[in-house]
Amino acid sequence: MPSYGWLLALTLAALAGNNAVAVTYEGTERNCSVIPPYLPSTAVSTTLQLQELRYQMRLMSISAYIIPGTDAHLSEYLAPRDARVAFMTGFTGSAGTAVVTQSKAALWTDSRYWVQAERQMDCNWELEKDVSVSSLAEWLISEVPSGGEIGFDPFLFSLKTQEEYAINLESSNRTLKSMPDNLVDKVWKNRPPIPPDSLTRLSDRVIQRSWQTKVEHIRNQMRDNPYEPTALLLSALDETAWLFNMRGNDIPYNPFFYSYTLLTMDEIWVFLHMNRLTDELKAYLNSSCTGPLCVQLKNYEDVLGHLKTYVAQPGVKVWIGTEYTNYALYEIITPQDKLMTSSYSPVLTTKAVKDDKEQQILRDAHVRDAVAVIQLLMWLEQAVPKGTETELSAAEYVNKCRSQQKDSRGPSFETISASGPNAALAHYSPTEETNRKLTVDEMYLVDSGGQYLDGTTDITRTVHWGTPTAMQKEAFTRVLMGNIELSRTIFPSGTRGVNMEMLGRRALWQVGLNYGHGTGHGVGNYFGVHEWPVGFQSNNVPFRPGMFTSIEPGYYKDNDFGIRIEDIVVIVPVNTKYGHNYLTFETVSLVPYDRKLIDTSLLSSEQLEWLNNYYKTIRELVGAELDKQKLKEEKDWMLKHTEPFSSASVCSSSLTVVALAIALLHNLV
Amino acid sequence: MPSYGWLLALTLAALAGNNAVAVTYEGTERNCSVIPPYLPSTAVSTTLQLQELRYQMRLMSISAYIIPGTDAHLSEYLAPRDARVAFMTGFTGSAGTAVVTQSKAALWTDSRYWVQAERQMDCNWELEKDVSVSSLAEWLISEVPSGGEIGFDPFLFSLKTQEEYAINLESSNRTLKSMPDNLVDKVWKNRPPIPPDSLTRLSDRVIQRSWQTKVEHIRNQMRDNPYEPTALLLSALDETAWLFNMRGNDIPYNPFFYSYTLLTMDEIWVFLHMNRLTDELKAYLNSSCTGPLCVQLKNYEDVLGHLKTYVAQPGVKVWIGTEYTNYALYEIITPQDKLMTSSYSPVLTTKAVKDDKEQQILRDAHVRDAVAVIQLLMWLEQAVPKGTETELSAAEYVNKCRSQQKDSRGPSFETISASGPNAALAHYSPTEETNRKLTVDEMYLVDSGGQYLDGTTDITRTVHWGTPTAMQKEAFTRVLMGNIELSRTIFPSGTRGVNMEMLGRRALWQVGLNYGHGTGHGVGNYFGVHEWPVGFQSNNVPFRPGMFTSIEPGYYKDNDFGIRIEDIVVIVPVNTKYGHNYLTFETVSLVPYDRKLIDTSLLSSEQLEWLNNYYKTIRELVGAELDKQKLKEEKDWMLKHTEPFSSASVCSSSLTVVALAIALLHNLV
Repeated sequence: MPSYGWLLALTLAALAGNNAVAVTYEGTERNCSVIPPYLPSTAVSTTLQLQELRYQMRLMSISAYIIPGTDAHLSEYLAPRDARVAFMTGFTGSAGTAVVTQSKAALWTDSRYWVQAERQMDCNWELEKDVSVSSLAEWLISEVPSGGEIGFDPFLFSLKTQEEYAINLESSNRTLKSMPDNLVDKVWKNRPPIPPDSLTRLSDRVIQRSWQTKVEHIRNQMRDNPYEPTALLLSALDETAWLFNMRGNDIPYNPFFYSYTLLTMDEIWVFLHMNRLTDELKAYLNSSCTGPLCVQLKNYEDVLGHLKTYVAQPGVKVWIGTEYTNYALYEIITPQDKLMTSSYSPVLTTKAVKDDKEQQILRDAHVRDAVAVIQLLMWLEQAVPKGTETELSAAEYVNKCRSQQKDSRGPSFETISASGPNAALAHYSPTEETNRKLTVDEMYLVDSGGQYLDGTTDITRTVHWGTPTAMQKEAFTRVLMGNIELSRTIFPSGTRGVNMEMLGRRALWQVGLNYGHGTGHGVGNYFGVHEWPVGFQSNNVPFRPGMFTSIEPGYYKDNDFGIRIEDIVVIVPVNTKYGHNYLTFETVSLVPYDRKLIDTSLLSSEQLEWLNNYYKTIRELVGAELDKQKLKEEKDWMLKHTEPFSSASVCSSSLTVVALAIALLHNLV
Repeated sequence: MPSYGWLLALTLAALAGNNAVAVTYEGTERNCSVIPPYLPSTAVSTTLQLQELRYQMRLMSISAYIIPGTDAHLSEYLAPRDARVAFMTGFTGSAGTAVVTQSKAALWTDSRYWVQAERQMDCNWELEKDVSVSSLAEWLISEVPSGGEIGFDPFLFSLKTQEEYAINLESSNRTLKSMPDNLVDKVWKNRPPIPPDSLTRLSDRVIQRSWQTKVEHIRNQMRDNPYEPTALLLSALDETAWLFNMRGNDIPYNPFFYSYTLLTMDEIWVFLHMNRLTDELKAYLNSSCTGPLCVQLKNYEDVLGHLKTYVAQPGVKVWIGTEYTNYALYEIITPQDKLMTSSYSPVLTTKAVKDDKEQQILRDAHVRDAVAVIQLLMWLEQAVPKGTETELSAAEYVNKCRSQQKDSRGPSFETISASGPNAALAHYSPTEETNRKLTVDEMYLVDSGGQYLDGTTDITRTVHWGTPTAMQKEAFTRVLMGNIELSRTIFPSGTRGVNMEMLGRRALWQVGLNYGHGTGHGVGNYFGVHEWPVGFQSNNVPFRPGMFTSIEPGYYKDNDFGIRIEDIVVIVPVNTKYGHNYLTFETVSLVPYDRKLIDTSLLSSEQLEWLNNYYKTIRELVGAELDKQKLKEEKDWMLKHTEPFSSASVCSSSLTVVALAIALLHNLV
C-alpha cells in the first residue's frame, strides 16, 4: 500500500500536475455554494459537536483548537477511540488535521483524500489542500486575532510538529497553548472504551530472541552511547510490543496494544492496562520481582507521573526517539541536560533489521500469501466476464482466501479493490456508494495484505480482463520497468532509499508520466504494514541486509484508470566483481504480473532476464506450496501465467535467431 | 573539480572503503613516533605561532580555541589574509579546522587531504580524520576541563556551525565563547593586507539585467514574502558582486571582493573598501544620492555597527540566508521577531537560474575553453612519448592555452594535473616535491578550468598514451556510462540532484566500484567554480531550466590511478510523449573522451547514440571555432577523436549488418 511522506507527496503532487486535480463522479460530492447547500447521503452532520467544542474553547479562552489525526503514540492507524478528526469532521481518511475557531472549521488532507472529504463533510467545514504546517499556520494567523491563543493536545503532537508550528507562528503574536486535557474527548459522549481483550505473547516457534535477550541488546546500545543515557523511553506501540514479543488488538489491522516502556540499566517499567494481562503473561514478564530482568507493571495512565519522578532524580538522562515521542512526555524531560534525542529509538533501528528467524518466517508467510492472491486472480478471471462481481465482492474474496491460509490473522489493512476511475485514487477503498461492477472493459487494481503469526504482507497487482488500450499497456509496462530497475539494482551497503527511488520512476519520466506517492515502506513480522523507518522516503534509514521494504511504483490517470505494481523485497548481500559490502533486493512477493499488459519490446534484455528469473522462483516456491495444499487448478493457472517470455524482442537472442536463418540459407545453397 | 559535502563525503568515504586509506609514497610524510621525529622538507615549523596563540588564550582565559578554514563570508576559497589554518598549522588544503589547547593542537580534514597534511604539518599537530562536528566536540570534551570555555571567532562561524557545536557540547559543562577579536590575527605579524587593486564592473555586452533591474526584482521577492521582511542582508561575496554586476580580485581564482549589502525597500547600503572604487564606479552606483536606486557606500568594517542601528528601529525584520551569514551578524539581529531566515538568500536562488544572455555567453565560453583543452591533449599526445613533460609542465601548458583565448581571465582554480598514483588523490595538485614525469605507462587526469569575462569553466579528462589495463578500461568506461546515464536522463522540473546522482554511480556499483566525492556543483558566469546552491548534494536546490552544473563521476584506485570525467551541463526543457514540465541535461563542455579507454561493448545502444550525438555537437560548435581561429592541426585532431563509434556491439545495427549478410547469401544462391 502506498505511503505519503508529506514533503514527497507535495513535491510529487506538484510534479504530477493533474494528480492535484480532485476527481468528481456520480454527483456524490457536497456543494456548499448553492442554497440550500447540497449534501450527499454520505455527509455527516457535525453542527452539534462543533457547538459543544466551541463552548469548551470559550471556557479555556482559546481562539483556535488543533485536532491532529493521530494518537498519543503518533500512530499511523488509529483505534476508534482515537479517531477524533472523524468524530469532529465526518471525514474518515487515514490522514488529516482539523482546526476549529469560533467562526470557522477547516480540514487539511492530501490529494488522496480530497474527493472522500468532499463526500463525507457537511458545510460546517472547509477543505484545505496544502497540508504543510506553514499553510496551516498562515490560515491560523489569518483567522486568529493578534494576541490569541491556539490550543493543542501535547499528547497528539510530536516534538517536530510542535517545533514546526512554533517556528511558523513565531513573531506572529499568536501563541500555542499546550492543553493536556483533550477538548474533543470532553464533548465525545460515546467515545469507544479501551478494548477489553487480553494481550498475547508470540509462540516460541516464531521467535529467535527472547525479550530478555532483546533488553540486554538494547541496554548495550545505551551503555555504548557516548552521551551516556541512563534510561530509554519507548512510546511507539510497536516498540514495547517488539521488545517483549507481545501483541494486542487495539488498532484495526495492527496487532498493537496501548503501552509505554521506560527502560534503565537495572529496571524495566511497562505502562499498560493491567487488567488485560493474564497471570501467565505476568509470569512471562517476571512481574513479581524487581531485578534488571523483571518487568515492573504500571498503569498506562501513570507514565507521565512516573517519568516526572524519574527525571527529578539527579544525574539521569532520558533517551527518546523524537519521531514517535509525544510533546507531553518530551516537555517534562527538563532541564535539557537530562534529555538525549535521536530521530528513532535504538529499538526501532534494531527492529528494522530482521534476524534470521524473522527473515525466514516472513519469506514463508509471503509464499502462503501468494497462494491467496493467485486464488483471487484466478477466480476473477473466470467470474468477471459473467458480470456478477464487484470491487466489494472481490475484496471479500481475497480476505476469505487469506483466512484459509495457515496462521492467518486477517487483513493487514483495508483492501484497496478499485476498478476503472476508482483506481485513479491511489488510496481508494470501496464502499456501498462507490462500489463498481468489475467488467472486461476496465482495468482493475487490487492492493491487499495479510497478517500472519509469522509475518505481514502487502502486495498490489493490476489486471485487465479485456483488451487494454495502447496507453494502458505502455503505462503498465513502464511501471513494471520501474519496479524491475529498482529491484535489480546493486548498491553499497548504507545507501538510502531516497537516493535510489527515482529508478522506480525513470521509465515513466522518460515519456512524461509520474506518480504522486512514495515508492516503498518497510513491513513487519506480524506487525505494521507501514513499518518505519525502513523505506524510500527522505527520513528513512540507510539500507542494511535483512531489512524488508515494499517497491511500488504506479501511474494514475484521473477519471480513467490506475496502475500500481507492489512487491515486498528483502535487502541481501551480493558478490560484485571488485568490491565488498554491496547489496541488492530480492523479491519475496511471488505473484505473476498480467502478461496482457506487458509490452516486452520496451524491456531491456536485463529486465526481461530479471522477469524470467522471478517467474522461475515463483514456480519453485509457490509451486511447491500449491502442491502441498493440493491446489491443482491454481498450480496450472500459476504455470500458465509464469511461462518464460521469449526474448524475441531482445537483440542478443535475435542475433541467434538470425544466425540460425543464415545457417539455414547455407544448407539451402 | 569535485566537491565534498561533509555528510556526503563521509558517507561515501565509508562506502568506498579503501578510499579512506591515506596514501604514502616517496617517504615525504612526517613520522612523529620516532625519536627525533622525522619531518619532511615540506613540513612547516609552527612552534612559535602556537606559543603566541596560547599566550593570547591565557589572557582571555579560554581552554581551547577553534580556528575554522573560512572567512567572514563563509567562502570556500580564501584570500591569503584569511588562510589562518595554513598560518597556524602549515597545512594549505582548502578544507580544515584547527583547534588549539594549552597542551595539544589538532587539525581536522577529510580524506582528500590526509596525505598533504602529513607532509606539511610538524609534530606539534595531530591529524584527526572524522570531520563531523560531533567528533570535534568529543575531542574538545576530552581535552577541555569541565567548566572550561572554548573560544571561537563569530565571524568565521555560520549559524549552523555554531548550533552544531552548541548541540554537541550541550550538557557537557563546556561552553562556547564568542570572541569577535580574532586571536590568530593578533599573533600573525605579516598577515597580508587587503589587496589595493580597484574593483571593476562588467561590460554591457555580458549583461542582460542592469543592477537596478536586479535590485527591483529582489525587492519584489521581499515584498511578496508572507513574513514581510523590511531588509535583506547579503553576506556571501558573490551576492553583492552579482547584484551590482561588479567583480574584484581579492580571492585567488575567484573574481570576488570583500563586501556586504543591506537592502531595504527604499535604501541600499553597500559595505566595502571605498578607496578601491573609481569615480566612474561611484557614478555607476549612484553613490551621490540617497533614493531607492542610489547605493550608499559604507566602510567594510562598519557593517556590524550599521546593522545594529538598523535592527534597533521598531518594526524592522532582516532576512538572512543562514548558509552564508556569519554568526557575528546573526547574533545581533534580536529579538527573534526581527529575524527572518531561509537557507539561501533570494539573490542566490535568483542567480542560480541564468538569464538568456548568461546562458548564451556561458555556452560560448565553453566553446573557446574546449579549444584550449584540445590544444593541451593534442600537445601531450605528441610530447609525452618524448619523455620530457611533467604534471607541472602540462598544467602550465593548459593555462597558457586558455590565456590565449578571448576574454580570458586566468584559471578558475589550481589545475589538477595528476599522473598515475597521484591521480588517486581526487584533489591533488602537483608541487615540486610530488611532480611526476608523464609517461605512456601511466594514466593521466587533468581537471582544469578558466575564468572568462563571459563565463567560468571546469572540465576533467582522463587519458592513457600507452596500453591501458583491462581494469583501467572497464573502470573508465563505467565512469563514462555514469556520466552519460545522468546526462541523458529525463526528469520532472523541480527534481533534486541528490535524488538522481546515483545514476552517475550505478554502472560502477554494478561491479563494486564507487567514488568518494560529490557528483556535481553549479558554475558561475565569471564567478565561482563551485557555485552553490546548484548541484547534486543534499542541501542543493531543485533543478530548474537555465541552471548549470557539473557532472563528474570518477574512480580512484589507491597507489595506482585515478579516473574522472567531468562536463558542465545546462538544464533544458524537453518534450515528452505525455507530460509537461520535464527537463534534461545538455552538455556544454565540448572535448572528446579518450577512445582508447572506451569499451563500447559495455555501452547500451542509448548510451552509444548519446555519445555519437555529443561528438556531432563537438564537430559543429568547436569545429566552427577552430576554423575561426585558423587552428588546422587542432581541427584534424578533433575530427579524428570525434569519429562516430560504429555500433557493431549494438544489436539494432548488428541486425542490419546480419540482414545484409543474408541478402548477400541470397544473391549467392
